[in-house]
Amino acid sequence: MRTRDILLSAAKAKGPMAAASEEQKNEALFAMAKVLIEHTDSILAANAQDLEAAKGHIGNVMLDRLALSKGRIRAMAEGITQVMHLPDPVGRVLERVERPGGLIIEKTSVAMGVIAIIYESRPNVTADAAALCIKSGNACVLRGGKEAYASNKAITDALREGLGKAGLPAKAVGLVEDTTRASSLELMQAKGLVDLLIPRGGAGLIRACVEQATVPCIETGTGICHVYVDAAADLDMALNIIYNAKTSRPSVCNAAEVCLVHEAIAAAFLPRLQERLVKERSSRGEVPVELRLCEKAAALIPGTPAGAADFDTEFLDYILAVKVVGSAGEALAHIAAHSTGHSDAIVTEDAAAAEHFLRAVDSAAVYVNASTRFTDGGEFGLGCEMGISTQKLHARGPMGLRELCTYKYIIRGCGQIR
Amino acid sequence: MRTRDILLSAAKAKGPMAAASEEQKNEALFAMAKVLIEHTDSILAANAQDLEAAKGHIGNVMLDRLALSKGRIRAMAEGITQVMHLPDPVGRVLERVERPGGLIIEKTSVAMGVIAIIYESRPNVTADAAALCIKSGNACVLRGGKEAYASNKAITDALREGLGKAGLPAKAVGLVEDTTRASSLELMQAKGLVDLLIPRGGAGLIRACVEQATVPCIETGTGICHVYVDAAADLDMALNIIYNAKTSRPSVCNAAEVCLVHEAIAAAFLPRLQERLVKERSSRGEVPVELRLCEKAAALIPGTPAGAADFDTEFLDYILAVKVVGSAGEALAHIAAHSTGHSDAIVTEDAAAAEHFLRAVDSAAVYVNASTRFTDGGEFGLGCEMGISTQKLHARGPMGLRELCTYKYIIRGCGQIR
Repeated sequence: MRTRDILLSAAKAKGPMAAASEEQKNEALFAMAKVLIEHTDSILAANAQDLEAAKGHIGNVMLDRLALSKGRIRAMAEGITQVMHLPDPVGRVLERVERPGGLIIEKTSVAMGVIAIIYESRPNVTADAAALCIKSGNACVLRGGKEAYASNKAITDALREGLGKAGLPAKAVGLVEDTTRASSLELMQAKGLVDLLIPRGGAGLIRACVEQATVPCIETGTGICHVYVDAAADLDMALNIIYNAKTSRPSVCNAAEVCLVHEAIAAAFLPRLQERLVKERSSRGEVPVELRLCEKAAALIPGTPAGAADFDTEFLDYILAVKVVGSAGEALAHIAAHSTGHSDAIVTEDAAAAEHFLRAVDSAAVYVNASTRFTDGGEFGLGCEMGISTQKLHARGPMGLRELCTYKYIIRGCGQIR
Repeated sequence: MRTRDILLSAAKAKGPMAAASEEQKNEALFAMAKVLIEHTDSILAANAQDLEAAKGHIGNVMLDRLALSKGRIRAMAEGITQVMHLPDPVGRVLERVERPGGLIIEKTSVAMGVIAIIYESRPNVTADAAALCIKSGNACVLRGGKEAYASNKAITDALREGLGKAGLPAKAVGLVEDTTRASSLELMQAKGLVDLLIPRGGAGLIRACVEQATVPCIETGTGICHVYVDAAADLDMALNIIYNAKTSRPSVCNAAEVCLVHEAIAAAFLPRLQERLVKERSSRGEVPVELRLCEKAAALIPGTPAGAADFDTEFLDYILAVKVVGSAGEALAHIAAHSTGHSDAIVTEDAAAAEHFLRAVDSAAVYVNASTRFTDGGEFGLGCEMGISTQKLHARGPMGLRELCTYKYIIRGCGQIR
């Protein structure tokens, strides 16, 4: 089917999806999870096809992300039932005003309409994204990567069958068949057919959306996250936080990429940082963290000299850029100039310094004495998420079900005129 | 000053503005209003210059919009003090979660940063927009029309003097000096320097922003508003509502442009509509409403035959397009195809029809038995507004102070890692 027809099809599902009751949507999610499990064999067969075709073209990490197993399919189904158990975000009266003339105005949450999602190789995103859209009363048009097409097709076939079983329109979940750049561009510019576009992927995809999209779009996921170790930091705490923020899962957007260290404690702190991130890991046979050091840091500990680009790179790897700063103000200025507005942290025992940092840093999540790794829908109590928004309009930080909704004003009168 | 320097200047004011206390901001607004009155003579002199230069180039309606008087300057100053009395939208804890590990997460409203506003000839927008931005802790860059430049300059000079008196940075209010299209385009594409762009003006300006902006942008104000008179309508009420929605102020975006009439009551209703909107107004010496009629309506009352474009035009004038529909479903389909998503109303005594309409119409404000003219920040209890958003992301309907803010997550820990 042509991409435009898939969009038109999804547009037709908007009405019934927006009007669906919580029970109907939950029934559909239950059926989607059930059919997904029932289709395990055909999904694995499709995935084997994808893996076979991709071999030699993509690296091992990407192959692993692409690979499905019975366990991964079960995890997808469990993800869907988790979403089912979350409260319905649609139909909440956010504010209610009764005007002197008797007009009753209710600001009410409603579904967005058609949400388009462009993402890369992991096929589990297909099930996650569809479940979040269905629960929030939206239709969705999914545009996954070329490498995962057969897997995504098998997964969406199962999801659509589940939707149909619950009496909701199967076309509320659409999968774009064209996996060339043309279809991405078409989604970005499908004004009137796409109510919200969410790109989930690398910096290139996000940039393309910002520059070319004429439909409403939410930037997600680029995270150059900073941990600033203040002069008044508890150094043990700082070490634990940086160790966690850097090494617990370096490939995710909330991992730290840059450590800023106040010069007053640099001589005491940096050797311990090097010990913890490099030597101890090496001695345990773990991948040591490569430290990319500014000149002042390089005078204190061994490491790679940092190039200019190192403070503007999302490494997503066991690499940490380290810079010594002369003051908290210099740390703030560095963050203002280099942060992607995702998550930034200060480690300090000085309450005034902490409050100043919280106010001054213009990022989605700003931390005092905690790891940036907490920026996550589950950790923030949203239950699940579609991604981490790094923009300021509409949604900032983890996007849960509520952030996939908009609102409208519903006004009931008995003949009022102005 | 070059537009880019004005933007850089505003960016420097972001920090102090975001951190300003409610008292400081109110003091600044008070001073802004006071200095504005003190500068009455110089503002009127500048305005006389604008009027002189504009004569012959713009029509009388536009000249009237451009003209200032002592009374209009006083009204501007009163507008500023009204904003001063509204509650501070910054620093509200929107949600608070304490996680099992002791992490305290507060979703907190914060200023957006730099708001750019592109608007057309009325100079009072300059004072209104600046006041709303200052109260919401933002810096603003204003780009008014060429015809009003001298007036806008005199007004912003006064506002900046007021800001300075209260110890806030004068550069938090910037006025773009270049009034060619180049500066509009520069604002639309000032990625990283403009946190939010609000175009206030005609359909052409809004379209240009949607197509060319790479900064976050909120579409405002285009209103092709519908009133649907259902088969079960109280016809007296319907007449009052349409009369009000069409004639109380035809030049504004919440005025009705289209009346849809159920065929079951068309023969009874349309002659009364014609009597009320055309004959009675003529006999009182008022401008009669021109009715642009679909074929079925034209068979029942006199009027102009409607062309296809008449159902897609924001007349902003004493013109009403009238269409007879065979069912509520046909009315909903017409609205879905032709509404700009601003405000649409049904007049009916049938509760089920009313609820179905409220659910099905995908517009910022959906009314039962009331005039579309109520879609307004003041009427909705927001106190004031920057415009009416017709989009779904971030803000929908009237944009008050809260809608000029974003939020961030502030997380306080004591060493938590994940």
